[in-house]
Amino acid sequence: MDAALKIDQTGADVKALMSDIGRRAKAAASELARASSEAKNAALTAMADRLRQETTTILAANAVDVAAAESTGRQGPFLDRLKLDEDRIEAMAQGLEEIARLDDPVGDVIAQWERPNGLKIARVRVPLGVIGIIYESRPNVTADAGGLSLKSGNAVILRGGSESQQSAQAIHACLAYGLSQAGLPETSIQIVPTSDRSAVGEMLKGLDGAIDVIVPRGGKSLIERVQQDARVPVFGHLEGLCHVYVDGAADLEMAKSIALNAKMRRTGICGAAETLLVDRACASTHLKPLIETLIDAGCEVRGEETIQAADARVVAATEADWSHEYLDAIISVKLVEGVEGAISHIARYGSQHTEAIVTGDQAAADAFLARVDSAIVLHNASTQFADGGEFGMGAEMGIATGKMHARGPVGVEQLTSFKYMVRGSGQTRPA
Amino acid sequence: MDAALKIDQTGADVKALMSDIGRRAKAAASELARASSEAKNAALTAMADRLRQETTTILAANAVDVAAAESTGRQGPFLDRLKLDEDRIEAMAQGLEEIARLDDPVGDVIAQWERPNGLKIARVRVPLGVIGIIYESRPNVTADAGGLSLKSGNAVILRGGSESQQSAQAIHACLAYGLSQAGLPETSIQIVPTSDRSAVGEMLKGLDGAIDVIVPRGGKSLIERVQQDARVPVFGHLEGLCHVYVDGAADLEMAKSIALNAKMRRTGICGAAETLLVDRACASTHLKPLIETLIDAGCEVRGEETIQAADARVVAATEADWSHEYLDAIISVKLVEGVEGAISHIARYGSQHTEAIVTGDQAAADAFLARVDSAIVLHNASTQFADGGEFGMGAEMGIATGKMHARGPVGVEQLTSFKYMVRGSGQTRPA
Repeated sequence: MDAALKIDQTGADVKALMSDIGRRAKAAASELARASSEAKNAALTAMADRLRQETTTILAANAVDVAAAESTGRQGPFLDRLKLDEDRIEAMAQGLEEIARLDDPVGDVIAQWERPNGLKIARVRVPLGVIGIIYESRPNVTADAGGLSLKSGNAVILRGGSESQQSAQAIHACLAYGLSQAGLPETSIQIVPTSDRSAVGEMLKGLDGAIDVIVPRGGKSLIERVQQDARVPVFGHLEGLCHVYVDGAADLEMAKSIALNAKMRRTGICGAAETLLVDRACASTHLKPLIETLIDAGCEVRGEETIQAADARVVAATEADWSHEYLDAIISVKLVEGVEGAISHIARYGSQHTEAIVTGDQAAADAFLARVDSAIVLHNASTQFADGGEFGMGAEMGIATGKMHARGPVGVEQLTSFKYMVRGSGQTRPA
Repeated sequence: MDAALKIDQTGADVKALMSDIGRRAKAAASELARASSEAKNAALTAMADRLRQETTTILAANAVDVAAAESTGRQGPFLDRLKLDEDRIEAMAQGLEEIARLDDPVGDVIAQWERPNGLKIARVRVPLGVIGIIYESRPNVTADAGGLSLKSGNAVILRGGSESQQSAQAIHACLAYGLSQAGLPETSIQIVPTSDRSAVGEMLKGLDGAIDVIVPRGGKSLIERVQQDARVPVFGHLEGLCHVYVDGAADLEMAKSIALNAKMRRTGICGAAETLLVDRACASTHLKPLIETLIDAGCEVRGEETIQAADARVVAATEADWSHEYLDAIISVKLVEGVEGAISHIARYGSQHTEAIVTGDQAAADAFLARVDSAIVLHNASTQFADGGEFGMGAEMGIATGKMHARGPVGVEQLTSFKYMVRGSGQTRPA
C-alpha cells in the first residue's frame, strides 16, 4: 500500500497497481467464501462502532473534499450528496448494523430434490467472488457497498469519485478496522487509492479475470461508459424513465396522491416518475385535478394540446419529452386508450425500470402487471418504492434493469450465484 | 462490379436478413411471453407427431448432408453425430413430449412477502426474450433447443452448422408446423437460412438488441470465438476439465467403479473425467488397482514417476497434461496430499465444471463440496451425471460454468428471468 501511495500515476503504474488490487481481492474472496456468519456480522458491527468513534476524523476528511469542490465552483445537489454530518454518519453505521441482522445468503439451500437413482441434488448459494463498484460523489456508498459485499461473502473493490476521495478513504479505514477486529482479511474491502481515470478502464477490463461483476452507481454518462466498455457483467440501469398510468377505473384521490408522491417525493432518484399516462376514458373527470395537484406542488407539467386545454399552465410537450428522464420537478402527461394504450406507450418509451397502474379494475391491473416488461411493476402504489430498503432487502447496491441474474433492487441475494451439490452412494451413470 | 463491392453487398444482405430475423423474433417473443401453457404444450406435442410423420423426409434431407460430408472426407465421430436414423428421430419426438410434461416456469411465483406498510411483493418468473443458439453438426439440437425455448416462453434463433443444414431445415419445418397447429407464431422458432459465416457475427452483436442471450454448443474453437466476440450474455462452458478425487477414506470398489464410469462411459462429453487425483494416504492400497482398472478398460493412463512405478503401462505425464481436456480414452493421474491437496489442484487446473470426491469421510466430503468452486460437485457419484436430463430437468440447452444467471445444466428455469409485481392499496412512500 505504501508503494501504491507513491505511484506517479503513469498508465503502466496504474495497471500494475490495479492488477495487485485484483489479485488481493481474489485471494480475500476465497477466504470470505468460507467465513462464518458470526465473523462477518462481528466485522459489520465493529465497522459501525468505528464509524461512530471516528466521526470527527471522517468529518474533517469530508471538509477537505467539500472545500475542494466548492473551490471548483460545485454547488447545489452535488454538494448536498457530497456533504456528511453526524446524522449521515450515524445512518451509515445503522445501515451496517441492519446488514448484520439480515440472513446470511451463503450456504442457503435454494432447492433440493432426490432422483430415482438415489442421488440427492441441492442447489446451494455461493458468493459471486469479487465485485467492482464504480460510483460518484456520495461517500455513504462506500459503507453500503462494503457491507453488502461482505455479508454476501464477496470481496469488493471500491472506486469512488475523485471529489469524495478523502471522505471515502476515511470511511474505508473504519471498514478495514472492522474486518481486522473480526479476523477477516482487510483486503476483503479495498478502495482504489488513485483518482487516475485509467483505473476505471482497468476495472472494466476485469483485472485479469479477478472481477466477476461491475456495479456502476452514478449519472448517465458514467453508466453509458461502463455498459459500453465493460468486458465483465454489469448490474445497473441506464435510466429510470418511470411511468404512472391512471386507469379509467382509478379512484381519483388515490391517483392524485400516488402521482404526486411518484413525481415529487424526491425528483432526483431513479424511481421518480417522469411520465403520467391518463386513460382517455376518465380524462373529463381525472385529468384536470391530477394536473392541478402536480402544478400546485411546484411541478412543471408538459403535454400536448389536449393536456394544455385542461390547464393554462401546462407547457407544450415535444416528442423528445416521452423519452426524457428529467430527474427534476417536471413531468410529461399524455392521454392513452386504456390499459392497452398505456402498455404500448411504455413498451415504446420506457426504460424497463419501474411502472405503476392506479385502478380499481383487477383485470386491468393484472394485464398491466403481466405485460409491462419492467423490473418492477406496481398496482396502486408509488414508483418511489423502487428501493431495496423498501423491498425489505436491508439495503441495495443499486437497481438493475437487465434480465440476466439480478433484476430490480440488488441486495445480498443478488450478489450470490449457486452451485449444485450432489450426494450419492456410489452411483455410476448407465450407458 | 468489382469483387470487393460484391462482397460488401453480400455482407449487407446477410446483415439485412439477420436484422429481419431479429425483429421477427422479438415480435414473436412478446406474444410467447403471454402464451398459455396449454398452447405451448399443444405445439410441442404437434411437433413430436410431425417429426414421426415426416421421418422419411427428414432421413432424405439427412442423407444429402451425410453424402456431402463424406465427399469432403469427414468421418468417424463427426459423421456419427451428423447421421440420423429412425431411433434418433423417435428420441427427438420423445424429448419434445417430455418437455411438454415439464412444469411451465413462466408465471411461477419464486418468492412473495408482505411489507409492514401492506405492500405485497411477488417475484414472478418471466421469459428472457430471444435466445440465439449457435451449434455444430448434431441435428437433434434443433429440436431440443426449439422445444426448451418455447416451453420457457422465449423466441429462438437457431444457427446450425453448414454440414447439417438440410437436416436441420427438415426438422425445423416440423417445429414450425407444430407452432402453427397450436396457433402460435411460426417465427417463435426461426432457423438461419444461410451458411454464410457472417450470420454468426451478426448474432454475436445481438441483432440490434433483439437477442438476450447466446448459447453456443460445440467445440472449443466455436466457444472461444463466441466468448471473445459476443456483445450479449453467453451461457456456456469452454471446456469440462473434470476431476475425480479418491480420498484416503474411499471404498476401493466404489472408487474403481466411479473412476471407470467417469472416464470411460463416454469419453467425448464435457462431464467425462480428465484427471484422477489419488490421496497419498491410500496410494499403497488404491493406486495400483485404480490404474489397472482403467488400463484394462482400454484407457491410456498418464502420470509422473510415482504413478509410473505402480504400473509399467503408465505413460509419462508432462505439466500440460493437468490442463488438457482429452475428450478421449486418456486420463492423467496424480497423487495429492489429502482433500486439501485435491482442492488446490482443482483450483489451479480445473475449469469450474464438475468434480467428484469418493470418500467414506463425511468431513472430507463436506470440505470438498463446499470449497471446490465448480458448477457441480459430487460426493460418491460419477461426473458423467453432469447433465440436465440426469438432474431431472427434462433436457438441457447446455452446461454453463459462469456464475452469472445460469450455472450447471441450462434447462427451462435457467431460460427465464423474473420481475417484481407489487400490489398495494394506495401506498405512497414517506419522505
